[in-house]
Amino acid sequence: MKAIQYRSVGGRPEVVEIDDPQVGPGQVLLKVTASGMCHSDEFVMGLKKEQLTFPLPLTLGHEGAGTVEALGDGVEGISIGDSVAVYGPWGCGRCIKCAQGKENYCTRAKDEGIRPPGLGAPGAMAEYMIVNDPRHLVPLGDLDPVKNVSLTDAGLTPYAAIKASLPKLGAGSTAVVIGAGGLGHVGIQILRALSAAYVIALDVNDEKLDLARKVGAHQALLSDKNAAASIKEITNGLGADAVFDFVGAQPTVELAGSIAAIEGDVTIVGIGGGALAVGYGIMANDVTVRSPYWGSRSELLEVLELARGGAINVEVETYSLDEGPKAYERLHAGKISGRGVIVPHS
Amino acid sequence: MKAIQYRSVGGRPEVVEIDDPQVGPGQVLLKVTASGMCHSDEFVMGLKKEQLTFPLPLTLGHEGAGTVEALGDGVEGISIGDSVAVYGPWGCGRCIKCAQGKENYCTRAKDEGIRPPGLGAPGAMAEYMIVNDPRHLVPLGDLDPVKNVSLTDAGLTPYAAIKASLPKLGAGSTAVVIGAGGLGHVGIQILRALSAAYVIALDVNDEKLDLARKVGAHQALLSDKNAAASIKEITNGLGADAVFDFVGAQPTVELAGSIAAIEGDVTIVGIGGGALAVGYGIMANDVTVRSPYWGSRSELLEVLELARGGAINVEVETYSLDEGPKAYERLHAGKISGRGVIVPHS
Amino acid sequence: MKAIQYRSVGGRPEVVEIDDPQVGPGQVLLKVTASGMCHSDEFVMGLKKEQLTFPLPLTLGHEGAGTVEALGDGVEGISIGDSVAVYGPWGCGRCIKCAQGKENYCTRAKDEGIRPPGLGAPGAMAEYMIVNDPRHLVPLGDLDPVKNVSLTDAGLTPYAAIKASLPKLGAGSTAVVIGAGGLGHVGIQILRALSAAYVIALDVNDEKLDLARKVGAHQALLSDKNAAASIKEITNGLGADAVFDFVGAQPTVELAGSIAAIEGDVTIVGIGGGALAVGYGIMANDVTVRSPYWGSRSELLEVLELARGGAINVEVETYSLDEGPKAYERLHAGKISGRGVIVPHS
Amino acid sequence: MKAIQYRSVGGRPEVVEIDDPQVGPGQVLLKVTASGMCHSDEFVMGLKKEQLTFPLPLTLGHEGAGTVEALGDGVEGISIGDSVAVYGPWGCGRCIKCAQGKENYCTRAKDEGIRPPGLGAPGAMAEYMIVNDPRHLVPLGDLDPVKNVSLTDAGLTPYAAIKASLPKLGAGSTAVVIGAGGLGHVGIQILRALSAAYVIALDVNDEKLDLARKVGAHQALLSDKNAAASIKEITNGLGADAVFDFVGAQPTVELAGSIAAIEGDVTIVGIGGGALAVGYGIMANDVTVRSPYWGSRSELLEVLELARGGAINVEVETYSLDEGPKAYERLHAGKISGRGVIVPHS
Repeated sequence: MKAIQYRSVGGRPEVVEIDDPQVGPGQVLLKVTASGMCHSDEFVMGLKKEQLTFPLPLTLGHEGAGTVEALGDGVEGISIGDSVAVYGPWGCGRCIKCAQGKENYCTRAKDEGIRPPGLGAPGAMAEYMIVNDPRHLVPLGDLDPVKNVSLTDAGLTPYAAIKASLPKLGAGSTAVVIGAGGLGHVGIQILRALSAAYVIALDVNDEKLDLARKVGAHQALLSDKNAAASIKEITNGLGADAVFDFVGAQPTVELAGSIAAIEGDVTIVGIGGGALAVGYGIMANDVTVRSPYWGSRSELLEVLELARGGAINVEVETYSLDEGPKAYERLHAGKISGRGVIVPHS
Repeated sequence: MKAIQYRSVGGRPEVVEIDDPQVGPGQVLLKVTASGMCHSDEFVMGLKKEQLTFPLPLTLGHEGAGTVEALGDGVEGISIGDSVAVYGPWGCGRCIKCAQGKENYCTRAKDEGIRPPGLGAPGAMAEYMIVNDPRHLVPLGDLDPVKNVSLTDAGLTPYAAIKASLPKLGAGSTAVVIGAGGLGHVGIQILRALSAAYVIALDVNDEKLDLARKVGAHQALLSDKNAAASIKEITNGLGADAVFDFVGAQPTVELAGSIAAIEGDVTIVGIGGGALAVGYGIMANDVTVRSPYWGSRSELLEVLELARGGAINVEVETYSLDEGPKAYERLHAGKISGRGVIVPHS
Repeated sequence: MKAIQYRSVGGRPEVVEIDDPQVGPGQVLLKVTASGMCHSDEFVMGLKKEQLTFPLPLTLGHEGAGTVEALGDGVEGISIGDSVAVYGPWGCGRCIKCAQGKENYCTRAKDEGIRPPGLGAPGAMAEYMIVNDPRHLVPLGDLDPVKNVSLTDAGLTPYAAIKASLPKLGAGSTAVVIGAGGLGHVGIQILRALSAAYVIALDVNDEKLDLARKVGAHQALLSDKNAAASIKEITNGLGADAVFDFVGAQPTVELAGSIAAIEGDVTIVGIGGGALAVGYGIMANDVTVRSPYWGSRSELLEVLELARGGAINVEVETYSLDEGPKAYERLHAGKISGRGVIVPHS
Repeated sequence: MKAIQYRSVGGRPEVVEIDDPQVGPGQVLLKVTASGMCHSDEFVMGLKKEQLTFPLPLTLGHEGAGTVEALGDGVEGISIGDSVAVYGPWGCGRCIKCAQGKENYCTRAKDEGIRPPGLGAPGAMAEYMIVNDPRHLVPLGDLDPVKNVSLTDAGLTPYAAIKASLPKLGAGSTAVVIGAGGLGHVGIQILRALSAAYVIALDVNDEKLDLARKVGAHQALLSDKNAAASIKEITNGLGADAVFDFVGAQPTVELAGSIAAIEGDVTIVGIGGGALAVGYGIMANDVTVRSPYWGSRSELLEVLELARGGAINVEVETYSLDEGPKAYERLHAGKISGRGVIVPHS
């Protein structure tokens, strides 16, 4: 079958022909309907050889959806032909985090060499893929796989980040979203659906600010030298109750810290390499700073419910497998609006 | 000055002339701008002599707003002419509940004989009223006192009830509001503003159902024999994650219990005399049932923020002090749409 | 193999010879090391034919432990010879509750005919048992299966009940445990380990009160007519912040309701048929009443950690399979101290 | 009357004679029974002129207790002769934070020039002191003021820090306390009373480690190069679920970050000038880092309940007002064991 692989350190994605995968006991074979492209792919392809924690070649695609093509022995509760999405952050299934469905925080995955599809295990950018356990599948039902496959990461990650801050986003609160790209433009929609917060988006160009407004931001401002002062003014000097930084570069994390209110949350989601210093007297009192990773199984089910109810619409650009390498060039150049999606059987 | 009083057990509200109140140290004198009428007033006027926990006559009005007319010695942080609303559930200010601003749950109020204005202490249905401590005042600013005075009870009570259930009202959840009257029509607006819940309203006539839809209910159904089955169908057999019963009569609490989902919440707000039986196997597993009372000081500040942001609009009918007795007849007959408000200086 | 079965409605447990179970793909075969006896067994054996939701005969035992004897195809992460305990409240594994490990609240179990072992599926009171999925096994490691098998229900159930009330059991709080039997005497230990609450136990005879004191209750009182007054006095008139009723009969649930403090919790755990009425003015303001069922997978892991750290010791009486019917007579007569445990291979 | 003052930048505490304070309306005059010494005093006396946010001279003492000597007009609910402690972090009393009793996070204190006693307003290191509002007093009852005055800061601050992490300190969890001094040795006792956590203390000398063990730490280790490795080993490689850094210097905050488990909490309490960098990939996933300040009014009531129940014993060294300057030299040299307390009327 055809697949998009990252084959050697420093290389770029290539379309290759590989063997069709065979389903084993307890596994599920999917015919892939859609696979999302993500900045994390670029992050992985930018790592040095000694930083890479798994062998190459790697079939890309950690956002995946498909129809069930075959079931391994002992698999129950799912049927051939079902339209499903893949929960990506696979864990051991038995530790205390996994027992709560938080496989993204599995305490054994590293030691046991368990890796997400597309980030170590063979991913979804192929005609078919193996899912190691049916618990990693969630039903899509009538949801369009192409429009919604990105919710498995670009929806789930901001959802989990935002959900943890909801107790601080009650009546009269303010939330700031830094970066209105793949994750951020979904984050804005989630904030509007789940909270009463006044939502302010920050980004570097008018196109992104327009997208932010289109998907529901109450205000969208350039992320420039005046941004902090503007937010202080909008919030009567109090600052924002929660700041979600979907960029995570040094200037954005520092901006995030400077605009957080007393007892506010700063959540660094983007993997832009920035680090925010926390200590007495540096920020407003009791600002909480964290850097979460992906989300839980039940949160993925919840995100899909939001989409089902019409609260989330992902902006997508679609490409065939053959167009994958070209699409990654667009991603690399920051030209994708919303999210890029590979459709293998189009 | 003129005041509306309940003067003897079994009587009806009367307009009377009483002495102007004098401000003492630590107190604040308000010139009343608005005072809301409430079913609780009818409840109190329906009590027998031995059930009444305070002496008569009583100046009615536990929803109050005014402008600051005079300050007692030692009062700081508030100025003559400020437009304010009165936080009604006065407590001792020193117990652990009061220390959290939950004066509605003061552990000493009963022993110390502390009573809310209009429910023991002289209330807001008069030209002037005394507020015992400036902490019981919240700034209204530009908010219209007449349109918003009812938020001090008809807004605060549903807000506090709903806020406690928000963790259960995430993506894909369902909330049911029983009774779309004074409290319920505000509750619907609060649910829409603060949560992603699908909101279903139940009431007994089309006029109330129209109001429910107008203020944001996704569906509004007659509260008849088919109501439970309809809600089960809408929720795919799961039931509602939270049910708020603003009526509280026996049929409505039983309906509430029958439609609550596993781990759902049933909150009995209305004082209609009903009681819901809780025990193993009676309802869905782990349904939580409670009967809260009013709300906290910080919650009142939050409700007013919602109104300021345009998320809550209270339906009001306005009356002068002299029209008060007539207005109470309308309330008694269930003819008030939304909330009745007395405007003393109109 | 030998098994203890409930064979016909109205009968009593019998020791029978049945076929050895065969492991299928995805399943695990255990050689049973211990199986706990529970009042729920008596509850089931007391149901009428039309109340029974599964066919007979039923191999009893919903508290089970064993060593892994054989693995079905596709089972990973567990090895032959491992000492494990069985998580009993099996669910579908895919719904939103199961995705959080709360299989006890599975929304599909009923429709899909999924039943816990010993409560519909073949249980642990046999020489061998089948566990349908490895996720339903938790490692015991060095913990003695005989001493700890009861933690899978008699530990997990009070743990889950208590954990939900911990936010109300801070400094200066009071917890009341009604019933110091199988579940209650573990509940007392959990309360002491996890909270700063002052723990008061209530039961009907001195033997139970002695056990309560031995396992850590600060006070143990007869559950008589003076109990409510005593608790009000001990708590300076405030009442208890949380009441756990492990009996659940009508007199005990009413006692629980009468001693709960403002904003207190009443948790009805026992299946004694009682029901507590909740409504305005019946109990202290905002008392929360619920009736939970069993606990989650991660909570079982937590309970075992408590035992590992020495915080929980279950009082046990041990019996062979052949002695099972006799042991159930003792249980029926209320003569078991702590928990009865069947040891099949002793 | 006699008072200990900090009179000019760069100076040291001096005993001086100043005018007796006069009580105004709404205020309370205390005859001081005890006042605690704190590292924050040294911190303030180490600030440069341009960093100081209030004028000198300053009567020191932000931990205060006294008996009520006189009441201003309008003060209710408190009586002459009552033994009380002073809640130190005074706020405006009206903002949303103050409405919840979190005056430590008042949003208006800075703009309105409101300052804690001993940190801007005249403090408790004097024969008498003025408390601006009775809400800032909590009853001590039978608690010894000298033994317990430090709970108003050295108890309240760790209590508030720990309370926020309690949901992460369930069965099987580990907590690390860095610094077993004035705050840390109380923090250890609070952790033991409120949680099931295994408590590990780190400090730099054997005397402090002995104190840590004496007050309840399960283990006490030298805070050296091996500390991180030891904690990883004790926790089976998982790290600590919560780390409380009562030192807050650069080496200790980095140590704290390095030993926090996935989803763990790092709370920087000490004002030692350190800052911990938070960003993707730096610490374990989703470690939360914050730097809280003091605590709320209700938390102070709770801390006193813990002391009342015998769960907290503060180690104290006592001094007269005249010995104050000498005692501060001991504090400066790190020679105080536990907490130094000034007793004005000894």
